Amino acid sequence: MTGTSWKLKGETKCQSILNAIPEKWRLESPVPPATELRDVTGDYIRQYLTEHEITITETDAVDIVAQTSTGRWSALEVTEAFCHRAALAHQLVNCLHEIFFEAAIQDAKRQDEYFAKHKTPIGPLHGLPVSLKDQFHVKGVETTMGYVGWINTFQGQQNDPRSGTEESELVRELRNLGAVLYCKTSVPATLMVGETMNNIIGYTWNPKNRLLSSGGSSGGEGALIALRGSPAGFGTDIGGSVRIPAGFNSLYGIRPSAGRIPYQGAANSLDGQGSILSVIGPIAPTARSLTFLFKAVLSQEPWLRDPLALELPWRDEVVRETRALIEKARGGVPTLAFGIMKYDGLALVHPPIARGLRIVEKTLRRLGHRVVEWTPPSHSIANGLLGKIFNMDGGADVKYHLGLSGEPQAPEIVCNENGIQMTASEIAALNVAKREYQKQYMDYWDSTAEVTGTGRPVDALFCPLAPHAAVIPGEFKSVGYTGFVNVLDYTSLAIPVTFADKKIDVRSANESVNDSELIQWDYDAEAYDGAPVGVQLVGRRLQEEKMLTLAGYLGEEIARDTKEKI
Amino acid sequence: MTGTSWKLKGETKCQSILNAIPEKWRLESPVPPATELRDVTGDYIRQYLTEHEITITETDAVDIVAQTSTGRWSALEVTEAFCHRAALAHQLVNCLHEIFFEAAIQDAKRQDEYFAKHKTPIGPLHGLPVSLKDQFHVKGVETTMGYVGWINTFQGQQNDPRSGTEESELVRELRNLGAVLYCKTSVPATLMVGETMNNIIGYTWNPKNRLLSSGGSSGGEGALIALRGSPAGFGTDIGGSVRIPAGFNSLYGIRPSAGRIPYQGAANSLDGQGSILSVIGPIAPTARSLTFLFKAVLSQEPWLRDPLALELPWRDEVVRETRALIEKARGGVPTLAFGIMKYDGLALVHPPIARGLRIVEKTLRRLGHRVVEWTPPSHSIANGLLGKIFNMDGGADVKYHLGLSGEPQAPEIVCNENGIQMTASEIAALNVAKREYQKQYMDYWDSTAEVTGTGRPVDALFCPLAPHAAVIPGEFKSVGYTGFVNVLDYTSLAIPVTFADKKIDVRSANESVNDSELIQWDYDAEAYDGAPVGVQLVGRRLQEEKMLTLAGYLGEEIARDTKEKI
Repeated sequence: MTGTSWKLKGETKCQSILNAIPEKWRLESPVPPATELRDVTGDYIRQYLTEHEITITETDAVDIVAQTSTGRWSALEVTEAFCHRAALAHQLVNCLHEIFFEAAIQDAKRQDEYFAKHKTPIGPLHGLPVSLKDQFHVKGVETTMGYVGWINTFQGQQNDPRSGTEESELVRELRNLGAVLYCKTSVPATLMVGETMNNIIGYTWNPKNRLLSSGGSSGGEGALIALRGSPAGFGTDIGGSVRIPAGFNSLYGIRPSAGRIPYQGAANSLDGQGSILSVIGPIAPTARSLTFLFKAVLSQEPWLRDPLALELPWRDEVVRETRALIEKARGGVPTLAFGIMKYDGLALVHPPIARGLRIVEKTLRRLGHRVVEWTPPSHSIANGLLGKIFNMDGGADVKYHLGLSGEPQAPEIVCNENGIQMTASEIAALNVAKREYQKQYMDYWDSTAEVTGTGRPVDALFCPLAPHAAVIPGEFKSVGYTGFVNVLDYTSLAIPVTFADKKIDVRSANESVNDSELIQWDYDAEAYDGAPVGVQLVGRRLQEEKMLTLAGYLGEEIARDTKEKI
Repeated sequence: MTGTSWKLKGETKCQSILNAIPEKWRLESPVPPATELRDVTGDYIRQYLTEHEITITETDAVDIVAQTSTGRWSALEVTEAFCHRAALAHQLVNCLHEIFFEAAIQDAKRQDEYFAKHKTPIGPLHGLPVSLKDQFHVKGVETTMGYVGWINTFQGQQNDPRSGTEESELVRELRNLGAVLYCKTSVPATLMVGETMNNIIGYTWNPKNRLLSSGGSSGGEGALIALRGSPAGFGTDIGGSVRIPAGFNSLYGIRPSAGRIPYQGAANSLDGQGSILSVIGPIAPTARSLTFLFKAVLSQEPWLRDPLALELPWRDEVVRETRALIEKARGGVPTLAFGIMKYDGLALVHPPIARGLRIVEKTLRRLGHRVVEWTPPSHSIANGLLGKIFNMDGGADVKYHLGLSGEPQAPEIVCNENGIQMTASEIAALNVAKREYQKQYMDYWDSTAEVTGTGRPVDALFCPLAPHAAVIPGEFKSVGYTGFVNVLDYTSLAIPVTFADKKIDVRSANESVNDSELIQWDYDAEAYDGAPVGVQLVGRRLQEEKMLTLAGYLGEEIARDTKEKI
């Protein structure tokens, strides 16, 4: 395939995505350039919507279903409102790969008929539109995963019978639950970067500041949900790909431990790499929306359909225990303790991130929780393991899929393409080293029981999601703050905190840090102005119920302290 | 190291094991050769023991602890009785690698002091001797894992500070629980074979028929427990290594799914190979002993100490549900259904195994359970995956550890030593193929709901453990009947059924089978006479509570039908 060919193919696909937007929802006049209009959220996007559409799309997943499952809102009106707003979002920031509004509207109509007939919802997600990262297969819809070479194929395979007929297990479960599927969101080809760009849709911009990135690799989800073009969606995370776009877009997002949400039948990069598994997690504007979706998926017993899913139903007792601890803490008993890590010894954070962590610490102290300094086993080991694991095939997978069309690799994607394959013995040694690091970290976590004053180790750890807020294109260079969690297979969430503010977040003289370990970051207060700042809440492995409960509680308390609407 | 050197080193170690047996427990006159005396269980070994020692050592783990934790038996008298019987067992069949009776006796005395002082047991395993396969590190005790090159080292490393000081996580937990550790049992060097032999202790013989194998790789456990030199012990299983020796010795043994019993800090072969994980499981003469130990270990919350362990406490509710199904079935309602697979399409079974399965089928039908023919996805795919995964390093691990001493590989061990390492991409493709096979098998299992008549898929599958009963040395050639379970990561148990009988189990003319797929087995009715015959009970992934409950119920019902004391 020639150079022109991949370009043309990408452009054709790009145009076909735009063409899938109904005429009535196309923007008539061009959007001002980002240099003139950074923020397209809030009132900007609202100008194109009716009051009722605004009400619907700015309601969270839990409350939407409260309406649809009692017949107050029809599935159809909810679906149409989100289709409309998603169409606008895509035209503003390039966040969609696939648009199938017509199928969604038909599904919504069937749901309304069902409700009219049976007076009961189809399932716990009745009439809830849910967006999907473009790794999930949906009947009648293509999956390109950002690769030009996947257009008109099944994961790059020509004439594959699964083309257009396959549905990923999660998709099947979402349908059972009553969700309405209507669009798939943009990803960077390869998935291996904290930004989102490809040779089909171009670059996915941050809706709060269109000079910046929406994050990646679930960047389309982040941008779409930030614009309320979706109440909630599912991304995937192998190094931070759910949490980064959530944090970059003032959203909540969870990276569960491997084995809870079914990955069966989804497309992937590096499929079969067994040392660090990519996992699926929801992204949404509220923590309770994440809990709502997570719990709904588990009610489908994915372990009966996905060989890698664990038979671990939603544990209400853990929620109750956690709430009891929170109640006690409210009564003045120090029952909860948190670690805070402000610097991982590798990448110094920008002023907005440092301020975000100070806000969190202040909130924790106000609430009477114990705060413990975090001095873990070296994160440079985690970073080293992550890099080796991601590159164990010497770039073969990425090279193959880019090679299908001959398209070039986006410069933002840092993939090792040295062609050197690790051997079975080398991979085994790497797995042992990873396990030993996990054991050290586990023992360190336990050791904090001596300093928390609660009689238990810390309940969770707060730390940055990245050294910077929603990043300047091409500047995402260190995935260490999220990646160490993937090495450990811990449960982790992004929680929104504040926004970069050029008046407050001024560069201070560098503190004394080990210069040899320090990755220098250019902080540009002007460029980052308005960029969302999130933090990361990290729990031990398979602690989803506890972490979701804590995120709901602390997210609200942090918001109270920042007094900002986020 | 020269040829003489490894031989001498192995012989010296072998002699030091014998020397660790107190003078008073050494056999004075030589044991008759196996050709004259096959069976050394029962009355033969009892001749060396006092009545009280026989009573203690022929009591199962549950009842022993009932005595020790109420002060009716002291930990000391129980420990001494098992030390004595283990010493005899080793002299009869070569089943021990490490003997540390003196340390055990001191531990038992401390437990008795604790009990005298506090009037309460140390833990749920108070005073229970537990044997360990020679992969577990115990303070002050060596681990050779059958390698001459590991003698006087830590896992082959000279001057390693962990030498003699390290304890595996399971060992730490067993001590917490009140178990008494007193010996480590023999394994084949490499662990990769269904028999047990090495250049230290030679060959571990089957106590029921000393012309035959005790199985492997947890063959020392099988032989020791068969002779009641231990009430229960822990083995490991990557292709059948718990279930084969359990089945070959009329014992129960469980291969749990990965992540339940902590492997942290145990020595292993192919460590870091991540496609099929070796798992730990208990072996004992009764199913309830397995449940007892399994539950006790989980009470230690191994997921807080082992990064690969799952936070999955013992689920009593599953036991209750399973018991309710059993009770209903007793009331005449067909609530339980079982698959039976008599032939995997690859290795035709010997007459004693075929009879064992007929016994099981008869029992199931007598109890009113539904019996379903098993026509699963091809087991030849599972076999192929297993072979590739075990040999992905081209034999490098095995070669390295044998090479430490220059010792030769036992001819029984079929390890591929072609030196060809699989690459990262090849391993990833293999992992995808494995996951696809798991998915197919899962879907097949589900599909049986249509034929069980219970409204659910089969509750479990019965199938052979091997094509033969306890095997003729050098004849263990097909690990497929147990290995497919490892590919699937299912829960599986060995259940004792009967014994080969040369009068009943005569070779029938080969039935019509696909000759190209058939592995021919020499069946020698005379040689196999008296060999234990077990069957395998297979459940889905992480179904330990259900499978242990079913094994207890069905094992007793099968024993009732065979009317044989096993």
